[in-house]
Amino acid sequence: MSPRTTEGVPWAFGGAHAAAGIHHDPPDTPSIGGVVDFDTHPSAYRHWRLDVDGQRATLTLDVDEQGGIVDGYELKANSYDLGVDIELRDAVQRLRFEHPQVRAVVVTSGKDRVFSAGANIRMLAQSAHPWKVNFCKFTNETRSAIEDAGARSGQTWIAALNGSAAGGGYEIALACDEILLVDDGSSTVALPEVPLLGVLPGTGGLTRLVDKRHVRRDLADVFATRAEGVRGQTAVDWGLVDAVVPPRLFADAVEARVAAAIARGRRPADAVGVPLPPLDRQVEPDAIGYLHVHCALDRAYRAATIVVSGPDSVPSDVDALHGQGAAAWPLAVARELDDLVLRLRLNELEIGTWVLKTAGDSAAAVGYDAFLDAHAGDWLVAEIRLLLRRVFTRLDYSARSLFAVIEPGSCFAGTLAELALLADRGYLLDGLREQDEQRGLTPATLTLTGANLGAYPMGNGLTRLQSRFWGRDEALDLARKLVGTPLLAADAADAGLVTFAPDELDWDDEVRLAIEERASFNPDALSGMEANHRFGGPETTETKIFGRLTGWQNWVFQRPNAAGPDGALQRYGTGRRPDYDRKRV
Amino acid sequence: MSPRTTEGVPWAFGGAHAAAGIHHDPPDTPSIGGVVDFDTHPSAYRHWRLDVDGQRATLTLDVDEQGGIVDGYELKANSYDLGVDIELRDAVQRLRFEHPQVRAVVVTSGKDRVFSAGANIRMLAQSAHPWKVNFCKFTNETRSAIEDAGARSGQTWIAALNGSAAGGGYEIALACDEILLVDDGSSTVALPEVPLLGVLPGTGGLTRLVDKRHVRRDLADVFATRAEGVRGQTAVDWGLVDAVVPPRLFADAVEARVAAAIARGRRPADAVGVPLPPLDRQVEPDAIGYLHVHCALDRAYRAATIVVSGPDSVPSDVDALHGQGAAAWPLAVARELDDLVLRLRLNELEIGTWVLKTAGDSAAAVGYDAFLDAHAGDWLVAEIRLLLRRVFTRLDYSARSLFAVIEPGSCFAGTLAELALLADRGYLLDGLREQDEQRGLTPATLTLTGANLGAYPMGNGLTRLQSRFWGRDEALDLARKLVGTPLLAADAADAGLVTFAPDELDWDDEVRLAIEERASFNPDALSGMEANHRFGGPETTETKIFGRLTGWQNWVFQRPNAAGPDGALQRYGTGRRPDYDRKRV
Repeated sequence: MSPRTTEGVPWAFGGAHAAAGIHHDPPDTPSIGGVVDFDTHPSAYRHWRLDVDGQRATLTLDVDEQGGIVDGYELKANSYDLGVDIELRDAVQRLRFEHPQVRAVVVTSGKDRVFSAGANIRMLAQSAHPWKVNFCKFTNETRSAIEDAGARSGQTWIAALNGSAAGGGYEIALACDEILLVDDGSSTVALPEVPLLGVLPGTGGLTRLVDKRHVRRDLADVFATRAEGVRGQTAVDWGLVDAVVPPRLFADAVEARVAAAIARGRRPADAVGVPLPPLDRQVEPDAIGYLHVHCALDRAYRAATIVVSGPDSVPSDVDALHGQGAAAWPLAVARELDDLVLRLRLNELEIGTWVLKTAGDSAAAVGYDAFLDAHAGDWLVAEIRLLLRRVFTRLDYSARSLFAVIEPGSCFAGTLAELALLADRGYLLDGLREQDEQRGLTPATLTLTGANLGAYPMGNGLTRLQSRFWGRDEALDLARKLVGTPLLAADAADAGLVTFAPDELDWDDEVRLAIEERASFNPDALSGMEANHRFGGPETTETKIFGRLTGWQNWVFQRPNAAGPDGALQRYGTGRRPDYDRKRV
Repeated sequence: MSPRTTEGVPWAFGGAHAAAGIHHDPPDTPSIGGVVDFDTHPSAYRHWRLDVDGQRATLTLDVDEQGGIVDGYELKANSYDLGVDIELRDAVQRLRFEHPQVRAVVVTSGKDRVFSAGANIRMLAQSAHPWKVNFCKFTNETRSAIEDAGARSGQTWIAALNGSAAGGGYEIALACDEILLVDDGSSTVALPEVPLLGVLPGTGGLTRLVDKRHVRRDLADVFATRAEGVRGQTAVDWGLVDAVVPPRLFADAVEARVAAAIARGRRPADAVGVPLPPLDRQVEPDAIGYLHVHCALDRAYRAATIVVSGPDSVPSDVDALHGQGAAAWPLAVARELDDLVLRLRLNELEIGTWVLKTAGDSAAAVGYDAFLDAHAGDWLVAEIRLLLRRVFTRLDYSARSLFAVIEPGSCFAGTLAELALLADRGYLLDGLREQDEQRGLTPATLTLTGANLGAYPMGNGLTRLQSRFWGRDEALDLARKLVGTPLLAADAADAGLVTFAPDELDWDDEVRLAIEERASFNPDALSGMEANHRFGGPETTETKIFGRLTGWQNWVFQRPNAAGPDGALQRYGTGRRPDYDRKRV
């Protein structure tokens, strides 16, 4: 894949040419080797249009055929690639923060007779395996964020399918709370991936059919193997859409659902939104820095060290928090960390281990959690925590080894303690090293707060403590009783909150060896292992999508029948049928 | 892989040379192209020894190094291949039927200082992808059958690890109800697959660590990346084993657990077992026939038609059932169908669609279910239903498209109606074709009985009706009310129990086209799609293993880092380190 050349493009967005996408790095802001960035703004969208009108918003998909994020394909029929989805993610985010009054979001098409043909096939055919997998994961996370808006924020998303929705196009609709399909005698919904492309629908379609929309499994089988899709009343009867409406009544039917969503919604009608300005980001060859999040790469160890700074102070009241807006500490941390995770995932494929650290004052972090608790009913506080939840969840779903390293001077407390709880391993230094003593530091601690008991549920619906102590209720109860107590190394290890608590003599060697060893393993096996260890306990539609469906999808993507030179993706559109190995595995 | 030559071996077992394995077909019983068969008997075991002593049994693993099922490797250190596991499956089955009094099964090693080194690595390295996947699936199903004995039959399995248990060796222990490890200063449990082999533990290890044994996820991470494993008290503290015992106390500790298991067990102390004789099986180039199950292959359509015959009559009483023993209709059907499924899976990889039919009298089938219900407390009745449950579950986990085709003369009623409910699609003929009229048949029906409401739960713990109508309680209630009513095509379709109900004019074309179309799709995509549609609703440790873990395992097995010429499996033992692509995906 060769990045599109975009000479003269400024680093941050700022115009039509600066839409989300792949950039050659401008000379003054060298990239750390990556090329994809996720910055955009509605004024820079090339593919979506966001219109906000009081308590409703409309997101119109009108893809610029020539606007692919890389060269080599045209985005016909509202098909999409990563660049289109980067804009969608941006819109989803802004609708939560900049438009707190919006209770109904209508997703529709700006093209005639087509809603969306789904992920662009030529893009998939030309993409390397990691790109396909990362593309699917990112788009899946955005679909989950759409569902999060309905489930947790009282913002109803309505797919108004004014034309055919195929594959990923229909999967956008599946992520919405309600689906209306125009009944014009030709518009269909379809998942043509299996019959036409020899792959699985990549953004949760199969799982959402049976587990979210409760489509009967045999009808789901027929639907997902019928390339031409289903239309009209059959689509309603099978549960694929909620209603079909003749063209002349379509707009009214959409409006009726919008009105109902607004009537039952619970987002504040008179709130003032918080603008999300571009992130202040410094990029160097082996480092990325934001205001509160800093990342340094060690290429020899294939590791990134990510340091999240804690709060300096707690806002005096909730008005002060609103006054800070996007600069408020937890919102800034969430946005910076989210951006960093996305950049590392897509741009730094060989950096296999992320070492998670914090810096700051634990007492201030505990105090900030108390402030958020005290104002949990405030819409901005709620949205900040919901965003933090999504960012932590993105870490859960990242195919990287996550090590929490807890040293003197850190503030793994409450919200930031989630970073320790989501890590594959945690190391907490027992004692002080020479450099710690010179800096006058006290021994490192881990502190749970009420935030760890429910503010940030995982995709499986459990808190990270519940998932960690799944089936061990006594250990869970003990951990709950430790809320508010700064735990030194031995206590945190005894409580099962960290894995190892080496003393200062062993510390450097033990942590270094663990990172070094991790870098020596098969990265694929690590991805598979971590995906199976991180989600003990029950499963949800979301974990089924990121766990089971993704595992199968990745397998199919790796198989010659799909990805090989004579496979379905390469042969699609050539007039030649794919040459399948007919063995069932 | 070249099958081992075993000249002069009779088709059925009958001596040491006829142990389970790959045979060149004897001239009088031509195979349908396949080479693996699953017949064996304790007298023919080469790798296990089964000793039954009253209410306890001991299964001793003592692998014949030269007894690999194919050439090319030696089964050192009690490592295993498919042939070893075919014997284990046989033992598990016989312990349920031939030894109904056995309440405690001790699994131990006949070798010095080693329990088992797990699946043989050279075997994995030389195996093609489908063999690896099928091997793992079969071994997983046997592990599930071990757990089924403890969970549903009151038979406790105790792993007495008198030496190190690594990889698949430890996974055998994980499938047992209790694990004892000798504390001799050197014996360990280990999952060295990720660090040493670059693949995932293949028989449920990762899932069972966190979901069954509730090992904390960070400790699971350490354990599954520590090639040398864990021993002594640490293994207990982490939850990897239930106890460690010094060598001189080991036998007594095992006996104590056996005694406790016998004391709390609920298998009948004085029951007379039912011998499981060799199956009466006729094999032709394109057909396999048993007494009640017949299979014909259509290689042009890549389809197998499997016809299961219903009962001729119902036993007069439960003594009569015991008198029939293995010849009793439901037990014979279960064993024959299980054997057929295994043979088709392993030997007929290109036969991608299994068309499920039945033949017989629905009233007799309903009557048989009533008989089984009336004697549900009888141990043999219970074991027969539990075996049927496992056979149906094996169909659920089969990577083949399953179509139920319901025609006049069939008996899809109760137990046999499960075949319609587990199918990906069901077709029920509305009316009579000319040939049906000539035979004096009445229109086909589908009949639910009480058996469909709980006798055969799926791996996810739900009945197939509950899973089918997941989230649609009204449809489930309606279906429940239809128990006992023979449903004609339209009624069965209205109730959502079949997918299509074509009339006699459309029937042949519609069914033929569906099968033909299925054969044109990418087999990999079908496997992935079906695995995602079949298990709506909740997940269990078992469905996580067969769904999520298997998806990831298959992916890793397909990746060059594991399976490529410079990958970990090929390089293992050569002294050369694998050459990994370091990208995380």
